[in-house]
Amino acid sequence: MQNDVLALAKALINRDSVTPNDAGCQTLMAEFLRPLGFDIEMLPFEDTQNMWARKGKNGPLFCFAGHTDVVPAGPLNQWHTPPFKATEKDGYLYGRGAADMKGSLAAMLVATRNFIDKHPHHDGSIAFLITSDEEGPFINGTTRVVDTLEARNEKMTWCLVGEPSSTSEVGDVVKNGRRGSLTGHLTVKGIQGHVAYPHLARNPVHEAAPALAELAAIKWDNGNTYFPPTSFQISNISAGTGAGNVIPGTLSVQFNFRFSTELTDRQLIEKTRQILDRHQLDYDLDWTFNGQPFLTDSGELVEATRTAIETVCGRRTELSTAGGTSDGRFIAPTGAQVIELGPVNATIHKVNECVKIDDLYKLADTYQAILARLLC
Amino acid sequence: MQNDVLALAKALINRDSVTPNDAGCQTLMAEFLRPLGFDIEMLPFEDTQNMWARKGKNGPLFCFAGHTDVVPAGPLNQWHTPPFKATEKDGYLYGRGAADMKGSLAAMLVATRNFIDKHPHHDGSIAFLITSDEEGPFINGTTRVVDTLEARNEKMTWCLVGEPSSTSEVGDVVKNGRRGSLTGHLTVKGIQGHVAYPHLARNPVHEAAPALAELAAIKWDNGNTYFPPTSFQISNISAGTGAGNVIPGTLSVQFNFRFSTELTDRQLIEKTRQILDRHQLDYDLDWTFNGQPFLTDSGELVEATRTAIETVCGRRTELSTAGGTSDGRFIAPTGAQVIELGPVNATIHKVNECVKIDDLYKLADTYQAILARLLC
Ligand SMILES: [Zn+2]
Ligand SMILES: [Zn+2]
Repeated sequence: MQNDVLALAKALINRDSVTPNDAGCQTLMAEFLRPLGFDIEMLPFEDTQNMWARKGKNGPLFCFAGHTDVVPAGPLNQWHTPPFKATEKDGYLYGRGAADMKGSLAAMLVATRNFIDKHPHHDGSIAFLITSDEEGPFINGTTRVVDTLEARNEKMTWCLVGEPSSTSEVGDVVKNGRRGSLTGHLTVKGIQGHVAYPHLARNPVHEAAPALAELAAIKWDNGNTYFPPTSFQISNISAGTGAGNVIPGTLSVQFNFRFSTELTDRQLIEKTRQILDRHQLDYDLDWTFNGQPFLTDSGELVEATRTAIETVCGRRTELSTAGGTSDGRFIAPTGAQVIELGPVNATIHKVNECVKIDDLYKLADTYQAILARLLC
Repeated sequence: MQNDVLALAKALINRDSVTPNDAGCQTLMAEFLRPLGFDIEMLPFEDTQNMWARKGKNGPLFCFAGHTDVVPAGPLNQWHTPPFKATEKDGYLYGRGAADMKGSLAAMLVATRNFIDKHPHHDGSIAFLITSDEEGPFINGTTRVVDTLEARNEKMTWCLVGEPSSTSEVGDVVKNGRRGSLTGHLTVKGIQGHVAYPHLARNPVHEAAPALAELAAIKWDNGNTYFPPTSFQISNISAGTGAGNVIPGTLSVQFNFRFSTELTDRQLIEKTRQILDRHQLDYDLDWTFNGQPFLTDSGELVEATRTAIETVCGRRTELSTAGGTSDGRFIAPTGAQVIELGPVNATIHKVNECVKIDDLYKLADTYQAILARLLC
């Protein structure tokens, strides 16, 4: 059994676990945790592997959350090393998932073992919530496990998500929340026609352009202490048959809000509709709700994490809510305190993804120090 | 030899001559014209068949212009009769090309024969300029034949194009010009990024929206006695990878001007650039020039056509420059007077294309009356 952070990280990276394939990563983790006293519950849903592992029956419950799946390797000819063969080079470990987030998983495992070795009679319980669908549609992953736990009233007190939160040095940034995300699917309806007979047609691109310009120019809010301002971005737009002489009959627009706690999704939906209506557009508008904003502004978890980083890494951490969504959005609504702490994210989802090997050891020590502050 | 308008129209429709395929239509026409004293010159260019047929050496030169190619049949299950098998039904002739413009070609042939029978010693010359690429890219069709004629200084005095100009009754509308057509291919450049990090990206859709709104709202001119106002239409727009979380790096827009003689293509290009520059867009802009506006506001051809329609069809015709482009744009710049007269265009390019059989006879008589007024 590999039992050092580096060996575990390599063993995980060598498993080609592109979403939603777990490729045996969770079994490897279970085999490490079972001898430490963890009860292992495999919770597969559809094509997704999930694992809930818990040691102890009592509260408070500290949970490590993470994912075994990785994004595809991308263009192989741009990799300097094989993406699914972990390779050490100049103090770095290369491979898909090294930073997002198999390195974190290895650090969690070793931190847990070392903590239990040192404090066999610790307070409360420790758990792992692991999924193989964080990078994908996230329908059968963390959200389904959380539903299962909620149904039996099993509550986490604290949850540490291993997402790569750090920017330039390990521990320099901790995510203590995320903005909400709301996607709009807009279809503006006109009347198709020939460009030579504009009076017989109604061009939906012409009708929508001023409304889109207005939506793009709005200052939705100013953000607040914890959140940057709400932002609106058009991600996709299309109209036309390809022919140069046809006035299109419909315009499709997809846009996304990343929103702070200063606004609700309902307010964004209502304001968007008001603008489209004021421009007298004939439209359909559907919404995909990707998650409420969440925030753990203070509490024992934030304090334990700050202190652990200061002790182990020798730096003051910065709390941030910037960046994309994470599975924390599914856990925070249960009432748990949630933070995200992982390695430097500079190479994630890119070719030649890598992590500094020393950072993995620091991360394991930091995780262990957090456990010690909360469960001793 | 079929020698009646209806029989000729059927024989042409039964030839499946989808652009640029002539399918023997021009040979059929040549076999009809040769015994009447026409010299036949076949002028193939690349995949396109063209025919220049002329009777007489002296001026003035009257020319019938037209095309043997047709647009594709479209969804066969929506046709009530086989598109390439001419079928009579309730006084109408059905089939692809019946109205655009094999019916006109048949009427031209019979009009010419009847005119020559009656006036064997007519003034001037008669010609046919026929192509098999009017509905396609029009690169190797009429424009190449006109170049050939110009190179040997062979000039038309009058040209009657057989395009289906009529709106509800045969002869109710004659086209005496067409607007110019100019197409713009715009690429607005931004910086691609993730919707969660808008400060690292620049959204070209957001930047372009106010400029497009302005272009769509401009009154370019008021038209004039002969031309409707210049119109601007966006025909195609697209940006985005399809992913909902990516800010697109570029926006592509295709738009088209149909312009009157109040403006030149240079003015349109300059004004468009000014607007894009004022909005500080980073862009590439290429242009496809489809043709200058042309106009035959008066003259013997217009008068002969008016009078012939009044005599044969019993109605006052309306001169119009509305509608799409036609091959007249290639002929008018040589200095010829150009008008377009053909059957009702209600079904052209659609399934169940048809023409009233009686209209074909009226058209042949009208064409003959025009010849008589100009060449006797
Ligand atoms: Zn991740
Ligand atoms: Zn035509």
